[in-house]
Amino acid sequence: MEMESGWLWIKGLPSRSLANTYEIYRQTTKIATDDPRKLIHSFKVGLALTLVSFFYYFQPLYNSFGVSAMWAVMTVVVVFEFSVGATLGKGLNRGLATLAAGALGIGANHLASVSGKTSEPILIGLFVFIQATASTFVRFFPRVKARYDYGMLIFILTFSLVSISGFRTDEILNLAQKRLSTILIGASTCVIVSICVCPVWAGEDLHNLVARNLDKLGSFFEDLTAENFRPWEAAQTENGSGVSVTRLNSVLDSKSSEETLANFARWEPGHGRFMYRHPWKQYLKIGNLTRQCGRRIEALINAYLNSSKTQAPEEIGGTIQDAFSGMISESGKALKEVASVIETMSRPPSPNPHLANLKIASKNLKSLLKSDFWEGYSNLSQVIRVAAVASLLIDIVVCVENIADAVNELSSMAH
Amino acid sequence: MEMESGWLWIKGLPSRSLANTYEIYRQTTKIATDDPRKLIHSFKVGLALTLVSFFYYFQPLYNSFGVSAMWAVMTVVVVFEFSVGATLGKGLNRGLATLAAGALGIGANHLASVSGKTSEPILIGLFVFIQATASTFVRFFPRVKARYDYGMLIFILTFSLVSISGFRTDEILNLAQKRLSTILIGASTCVIVSICVCPVWAGEDLHNLVARNLDKLGSFFEDLTAENFRPWEAAQTENGSGVSVTRLNSVLDSKSSEETLANFARWEPGHGRFMYRHPWKQYLKIGNLTRQCGRRIEALINAYLNSSKTQAPEEIGGTIQDAFSGMISESGKALKEVASVIETMSRPPSPNPHLANLKIASKNLKSLLKSDFWEGYSNLSQVIRVAAVASLLIDIVVCVENIADAVNELSSMAH
Repeated sequence: MEMESGWLWIKGLPSRSLANTYEIYRQTTKIATDDPRKLIHSFKVGLALTLVSFFYYFQPLYNSFGVSAMWAVMTVVVVFEFSVGATLGKGLNRGLATLAAGALGIGANHLASVSGKTSEPILIGLFVFIQATASTFVRFFPRVKARYDYGMLIFILTFSLVSISGFRTDEILNLAQKRLSTILIGASTCVIVSICVCPVWAGEDLHNLVARNLDKLGSFFEDLTAENFRPWEAAQTENGSGVSVTRLNSVLDSKSSEETLANFARWEPGHGRFMYRHPWKQYLKIGNLTRQCGRRIEALINAYLNSSKTQAPEEIGGTIQDAFSGMISESGKALKEVASVIETMSRPPSPNPHLANLKIASKNLKSLLKSDFWEGYSNLSQVIRVAAVASLLIDIVVCVENIADAVNELSSMAH
Repeated sequence: MEMESGWLWIKGLPSRSLANTYEIYRQTTKIATDDPRKLIHSFKVGLALTLVSFFYYFQPLYNSFGVSAMWAVMTVVVVFEFSVGATLGKGLNRGLATLAAGALGIGANHLASVSGKTSEPILIGLFVFIQATASTFVRFFPRVKARYDYGMLIFILTFSLVSISGFRTDEILNLAQKRLSTILIGASTCVIVSICVCPVWAGEDLHNLVARNLDKLGSFFEDLTAENFRPWEAAQTENGSGVSVTRLNSVLDSKSSEETLANFARWEPGHGRFMYRHPWKQYLKIGNLTRQCGRRIEALINAYLNSSKTQAPEEIGGTIQDAFSGMISESGKALKEVASVIETMSRPPSPNPHLANLKIASKNLKSLLKSDFWEGYSNLSQVIRVAAVASLLIDIVVCVENIADAVNELSSMAH
């Protein structure tokens, strides 16, 4: 039995490795076609690294290659990130932290060396311990973590290296100057290649992500046509109705990626239509409202799919159909319009026709719910789903209005 | 005007810097009391760094200090992470990537050097470019990004350093051996300190996070007493009712932290009640169900707070109050019990009394909705909120049952 399964394992090896190779090929083409910038980024890293290597390869200091060039290569590998903002942030963090920690480290080293031969190692050990403990703790501060985490890491590293190195002060200054210049060369190569060759701006990514999420909600509503969204009929399964909430998951889970992009965007210089101090925070606000709206849409679909399976009387369907499909299509249009206002960075139309329609439709639906139209349907289960869907729709209209307000604010801030 | 504001700025400086100092003090005590392990972690980093520094400080090779000890210090600073899993993962990534890239780099260097003096730099440049491009692209693969991102970084770094270094092969082997041994010393110091001094296990954190989120949902329900949750009365504002959905936000936004912890947990050796190959994936499943349940609770509260402001007739309140408060308190108890099953890693009681009660209550409510109890309330707006809340409650019971099933699965997997 054991042997047989072993034999089967060996027998299956060629076909499995073929399948694995195919899987890798499939993933590669998928990533490259989904976002060609990832492929370009890989070439950019290759380019920057080759440039820095050549710079040191052809230097007259070929023999003393080891240490200094190493720092340049290391800087390129570690600092080069996907977006300009991340690269700039890491580069600045690395440069400034090296400078600050180097100066402090030299001071600590000097202090320890004048204190006498026996107490020197103890003092240095104490300095390293206190500094590492304090800096590591500071990394837990939320604001430091968001923007200066890498800088703190480099600070700990440089301080420890400089303060424990047993060099004399003049030697150390020479070393520090060399190290700083190589880091400068590495970091500026990264930044130049990152900005000059097909730049990827985190701010633009954030901008597009927020617009795309709004657009997704809009498309979701547009696909809720009278064919697959009929709360006045007996409920269908998720598959049967053609309505799938899983499409919304990417919108609902976008919070952390939006925050990361906003943190990177703050490092970026103004460019194109995104000037310095572009209101990135407002994007986060719109993103939060978008997710709230998405969660309410999910609730709407759940109420539609999960509640009782009985059918409402014919007449209800007729009267309510216009109200529902009008609200859904106007919500979809309003969301798509708001998305395109962000995308094109245009001024929103004022007054917004879709929003005005939505307000009227919402008001009508409210008064319909209060009217005596429902009289005579004594069996509540017949109308409950319609009623629940109606009240959730009214909620969603409020969400859409909030989003439109936030986008108006953004547009007046950015212009 | 300009000058005056400048003067005000200077005048405000002492009080502002005092305020800043106080703010830093406040944050420090807050972080240290919220999670004392963060403070301990800082001391652990200080300890590991001091140990490694002393090791090299007192070595007989004091003069050749520079390069090799640097690698050890650097390894400690970069590899030491908050949890054991993250530290082990980074350490293994660093070690294995250095080994693999070092071997390949030596090969590339040798290949280039036998090809002749003129083609050598071109070939090396080509190797570095191809390797950096390919490895950077591989980092975008989702599975590589989750577990081997740091290893790929070190791979690019080491390969570039080794292949462009102009050393002879015997020298390079000597250097490689030295570098590997220092990395080994640094990484094992990290792992030993991380495991032996108050270890922080990512798996335990994940376990507690999942249990705590379930517990939060349970407490939320427990706080929804008959005093502040009365859907049969006129709606109140969020503040007026004492019901706040913002409490649920930390649960709704926990997806990315759960995934990070699960990735770290897979690196951790078995310990205590968490054996090797503990079913970490099942925690993610429970986490997803928890968030789904949280979103439905949010929908419930929104339906309660936002819908029409009219009051339902007295009699409805009386009849439905028992059904609602029973379901809510049983849901709360069931969720809290499930949370404590996870927390204590005990076997869930079978049959679960709260779940059985919930099923009966849900069935009763369903038949109440279908009954002719509602006859005579022709004004739908009077009962619509009650009806919407009822159907959302029935949905939530389904969610709670799913969570209980998933926890049963987890418990049978882990035992």
